[in-house]
Amino acid sequence: MEFKNVTVIKEANVYFDGKVTSRTVQFESGEKKTLGFMLAGEYEFNTDAEETMEVLGGSMSVMLPGEDKYTLYGKGESYVVPANSSFKMVVEKYVDYCCSYKN
Amino acid sequence: MEFKNVTVIKEANVYFDGKVTSRTVQFESGEKKTLGFMLAGEYEFNTDAEETMEVLGGSMSVMLPGEDKYTLYGKGESYVVPANSSFKMVVEKYVDYCCSYKN
Repeated sequence: MEFKNVTVIKEANVYFDGKVTSRTVQFESGEKKTLGFMLAGEYEFNTDAEETMEVLGGSMSVMLPGEDKYTLYGKGESYVVPANSSFKMVVEKYVDYCCSYKN
Repeated sequence: MEFKNVTVIKEANVYFDGKVTSRTVQFESGEKKTLGFMLAGEYEFNTDAEETMEVLGGSMSVMLPGEDKYTLYGKGESYVVPANSSFKMVVEKYVDYCCSYKN
């Protein structure tokens, strides 16, 4: 799969000492996505806008706001994180993902 | 810095169990580059076409073909690896890089 006619920011977004990194992709529509990668670990992120996370490879277990258990998401699966909230993740090996931000 | 009007392959290129990953960027000219990230470790890669490696963040020590010592490259610095050769790298913490492939 690919994104055509986009702008890519060269420098990576780096979190947790490089265990989580992403590249920002900007679309002509003004939309923004990030293509990211997480290595094994436990992470928590906060959202501003609503985010849709799509797993491109590997897998991740996610506890969404209001939930009390983790759900495993693998390749081809996605989930939505409400705006202005936080979500926890556990990555066993690694996960390759695409994050879409609602305008 | 950014790349405009490009195509980005969504799925990451994954090496060494995710310690090295990259995204492929294709230009209208037919040129290809990868935006990659390496975590701490020692790596060796082979080249097909000649490659120019530009450090976007962090640093890496590199032993180029025909050399017998490592040279440290930091942000803003780059080096060229001849076609059909191999080169060794040592990354202390992490390195964010852009690799350009000669057509």
